Amino acid sequence: MFVLGIDPGLSRCGYGCVALDGGRERAVAAGVVTTDRELAVPERLATLRGDLRELVVELAPDVVVVERVFFQTNVRTAMSVGQASGVALLTASEAGCDIAEYSSNEVKLAVAGYGSATKEQVQRMVATLLGLGQPPRPPDAADALALALCHIATSRTSRLGVVGVARRAGAGLPAGAGGAAGVAR
Amino acid sequence: MFVLGIDPGLSRCGYGCVALDGGRERAVAAGVVTTDRELAVPERLATLRGDLRELVVELAPDVVVVERVFFQTNVRTAMSVGQASGVALLTASEAGCDIAEYSSNEVKLAVAGYGSATKEQVQRMVATLLGLGQPPRPPDAADALALALCHIATSRTSRLGVVGVARRAGAGLPAGAGGAAGVAR
Repeated sequence: MFVLGIDPGLSRCGYGCVALDGGRERAVAAGVVTTDRELAVPERLATLRGDLRELVVELAPDVVVVERVFFQTNVRTAMSVGQASGVALLTASEAGCDIAEYSSNEVKLAVAGYGSATKEQVQRMVATLLGLGQPPRPPDAADALALALCHIATSRTSRLGVVGVARRAGAGLPAGAGGAAGVAR
Repeated sequence: MFVLGIDPGLSRCGYGCVALDGGRERAVAAGVVTTDRELAVPERLATLRGDLRELVVELAPDVVVVERVFFQTNVRTAMSVGQASGVALLTASEAGCDIAEYSSNEVKLAVAGYGSATKEQVQRMVATLLGLGQPPRPPDAADALALALCHIATSRTSRLGVVGVARRAGAGLPAGAGGAAGVAR
């Protein structure tokens, strides 16, 4: 299974693809798509779409995972992040990929174990989980790999959660544990 | 000249096309693209893109005018409006159209004469300027026609402004009058 994480942005859009081979995660590709700040926004969106489409065709991911952005926390770049996330979701949808979305807090919780982890802690955990000597660079690429790892971890928890409920009906899994709330379809 | 206004939204995206024939504006088409709230966002973005692309191919506008949205004023729907505007700008860019963006206040100022005009006042002015018996329905379509009219009025003022400055150098046009600040490229 190939999972492609996308950390949407108009100036810098991180991507990171993780393969799941026999229960072990492996980094397949990671990097950043950049667009020229001198160009007009519509042209930059078209560039972003072209580059993301090439990635999706080349990597043929089973799932594309896009960070869910909240505007309250990101007012200055909100418009361009929203536009970039729209283009990322559209590109994945038109390519027929499954799509999942997670918030930054969900990623931190899944990858580093708690929702208030720092960016550096998440990046060190990404390196550890993928067996890399050091955190992937640039940080945008590491963030995108973290999204892919979050989806893999959440899917795993979700499957275990369902088994647990079936075996021990009413045994009280915490509300929302392993839920697929972040999965867009 | 055909000018296609787009009032971006994921649930309801208004469009309105105005032709400029010998200095007179005429409504060519207006309506609303809707997407099913039951579907996942990526699918809805793909539907929106397909419908907007059909419109752009059918109408072959010289200019596509998209409302510039500010997130501070629209937090609840900010994410989906940003995503929809990204898809609209992308579609126009890939079709090779010129693109302009105006804020809601710029539209009110250009069409109704002042930036705090009510929606109803703008819609009545749209009907008057286009020689329609009553304001176009639904309101989303009227808002999109207002965007197209705003671009035509701004382009006209801009041309007059340039001529005026050339003829009466330093005669003191108000700062920003006729400026092309809203034009994205």
